[in-house]
Amino acid sequence: MFAKSPLAPESFPEMPVVAGVRVAGMAVGLKESGRPDLFLAELSKGSTIAGLLTKSACSSAPVDWCRKNLSNGKARAIVVNSGNANAFTGKAGDRTVANTVNEAARLLKCPKKEVFVASTGVIGVPVPADYISRQLPRLQKALSPSGWPEASEAIMTTDTYPKRSVRRVRIGGTEVTLAGMAKGSGMIAPDMATMLCFVFTDAAIPAKVLQTLLRRAGDRSFNCITVDSDTSTSDTLLLAATGQAKHPPVKSASGKLIADFAAALESLLIDLATQVVKDGEGAQKFITIDVKGAASDAAARRIGLAIGNSPLVKTAIAGSDANWGRIVMAVGKAGEKADRDKLSIAFGGIAITRKGKRVPDYDESKVEAHLRGKSIDITVDVGVGKGTARIWTCDLTHGYIEINADYRT
Amino acid sequence: MFAKSPLAPESFPEMPVVAGVRVAGMAVGLKESGRPDLFLAELSKGSTIAGLLTKSACSSAPVDWCRKNLSNGKARAIVVNSGNANAFTGKAGDRTVANTVNEAARLLKCPKKEVFVASTGVIGVPVPADYISRQLPRLQKALSPSGWPEASEAIMTTDTYPKRSVRRVRIGGTEVTLAGMAKGSGMIAPDMATMLCFVFTDAAIPAKVLQTLLRRAGDRSFNCITVDSDTSTSDTLLLAATGQAKHPPVKSASGKLIADFAAALESLLIDLATQVVKDGEGAQKFITIDVKGAASDAAARRIGLAIGNSPLVKTAIAGSDANWGRIVMAVGKAGEKADRDKLSIAFGGIAITRKGKRVPDYDESKVEAHLRGKSIDITVDVGVGKGTARIWTCDLTHGYIEINADYRT
Repeated sequence: MFAKSPLAPESFPEMPVVAGVRVAGMAVGLKESGRPDLFLAELSKGSTIAGLLTKSACSSAPVDWCRKNLSNGKARAIVVNSGNANAFTGKAGDRTVANTVNEAARLLKCPKKEVFVASTGVIGVPVPADYISRQLPRLQKALSPSGWPEASEAIMTTDTYPKRSVRRVRIGGTEVTLAGMAKGSGMIAPDMATMLCFVFTDAAIPAKVLQTLLRRAGDRSFNCITVDSDTSTSDTLLLAATGQAKHPPVKSASGKLIADFAAALESLLIDLATQVVKDGEGAQKFITIDVKGAASDAAARRIGLAIGNSPLVKTAIAGSDANWGRIVMAVGKAGEKADRDKLSIAFGGIAITRKGKRVPDYDESKVEAHLRGKSIDITVDVGVGKGTARIWTCDLTHGYIEINADYRT
Repeated sequence: MFAKSPLAPESFPEMPVVAGVRVAGMAVGLKESGRPDLFLAELSKGSTIAGLLTKSACSSAPVDWCRKNLSNGKARAIVVNSGNANAFTGKAGDRTVANTVNEAARLLKCPKKEVFVASTGVIGVPVPADYISRQLPRLQKALSPSGWPEASEAIMTTDTYPKRSVRRVRIGGTEVTLAGMAKGSGMIAPDMATMLCFVFTDAAIPAKVLQTLLRRAGDRSFNCITVDSDTSTSDTLLLAATGQAKHPPVKSASGKLIADFAAALESLLIDLATQVVKDGEGAQKFITIDVKGAASDAAARRIGLAIGNSPLVKTAIAGSDANWGRIVMAVGKAGEKADRDKLSIAFGGIAITRKGKRVPDYDESKVEAHLRGKSIDITVDVGVGKGTARIWTCDLTHGYIEINADYRT
């Protein structure tokens, strides 16, 4: 176990009861540490589901299963283990998923395609085919509307704290709840979601609408973070809606009825995504990169990620070094339209360059004072268009090397 | 100064006289350390030149100048300084280049467009416009056919050793010489060349042919290395041919007459490019990644670079950890065609997986013994096509963080 990240939020919300959701977490021996490593969520009949999955060409067996079944839009169970990613485990991995799904479907009396699975941990080591399925009866017995503390721990790997977030919002006058948890610390450059994130709501939202809402919010949260530029084989973000709340029927992802819910979902996902960054392996500083003036929003995001993924930018910030030349380098390598003579850069709101020139009264000591803090803001105005993006990342420190040079031993 | 890289070659070739080339290196105060920081090469009349330059959208003033003038194909001088990249210095940077070029052209009595320039060092700090030009008369006086030791030191920044390479080869029975030097250690993910590389030959080769030869060889050498995935604003690779050797006229980049020269050029550039990787900031291990079975050669290169740029792969190797799951991850994120069930991976020639399955008799202790060495070989057979590539990189260590968290102070 590594020490708790210095960027960890000071407090975490107490997870509420979400009508129609019961959860359990338990230690079943997949983690050598003996910490919780298996999670089960039971969703009430009629629950809908949406999901975003890794685009990795080597996605894990659980991701493949979710991809096959998400289009049905219905869910009764989610089974998640940590300690083993069940990725690159070939036919054995598929068998483990099949056994897990079969047993969960039997216990909860639902079709197999309504059981979703996710795994995180070491890649390439098979889990015995019935190891997880044999534990499920114990998990089922432990199901509770308030089982969140063990549940959110059971999905952690190198995380130093469990990530949770809660929002309450009204749909047509009826209050609904959104409760989510995530895990992730390294191998974070989501090309969909972080490693794992599960959000539950009692709202009644058709699966197609749910999927649209999730894609939009995911694009502005988990798809805007990076710890180390490495994309997981296992990225899974699932959003389940039990439909227990009694509000006017939702038929579209746009419009006034769903607007507050959509905003709350985005806010919750940004909260969880930035919690992941703040627990980035070895992170000592949390970095927010605002890009504006790019040729398009997509160009702005690519420029922001080029900055956020640059080892030279991240090490400079680790050293509180106002080496803004590395920002120029990163903008230059992003492959997007840029012009040396239009580029403006600020750290902590302090202008360093305007339109390609260092500002005349630039005082580096002020920037360095900002860089000695824990929360670093970088603003880049590319000056060639109207595209904007916000990216979150962390610095690159000795801690990252320590954690990753010897992860398995 | 950092200690010499443990991967430094045991010996370096003595640089030979190249007919038609005189060089000088000198300390002029651009580096605070007082070490050599200005280089001048004089090329005999009739010399041709070819070049590869960074694709960065924020390229330096010297790169912009070279880009404008390379198409003329003629060169009489190359002026290079270290200690300051003259990048992101706006109009002031252009003025410094203009003054430098004017003075070199005056001293060597040649057209300005036959003077090429390069700069490396800190980004964003202007050099006084006549600082370099004022030093050139001293440099000119020091020109010598054997001035290489100071010359190759004068282009270094965080390098821990100067990089040099020599080849001798025949064109139609006449021996010609190739002599090259390079610098580079961090900010190495050439999208053209490394930071800086200069190769000189006495062969007589028309500029267009020279450019074709250089592009081909550059694509198989400098464009196949990465230290930290960060592409410099200043990447410049120049190849000058003085035409002093008396061999049958070369009219094409293909065919028997030029074949040995082309092979020698590629071999020399690979030698210099791998010397850059072996001096990668903080490097403790030199990694060769062979990718085969990809959809195309370009796909193989992208997969190889995804592996070579992965912080998780590089830290695992730093820790001698046989964490081959991270290779699966990197193949998966490369964005190229891949199939979990066709992927074969070997470390040090020891098979770990074949067609998506761990080999039955896999003995991790043998792989770990290989990983404890200084030279690590990774072979990946994607299993979906015939594309191949070879990529060179180094591990990611505490040394990289130490060097880069506080580069400027």
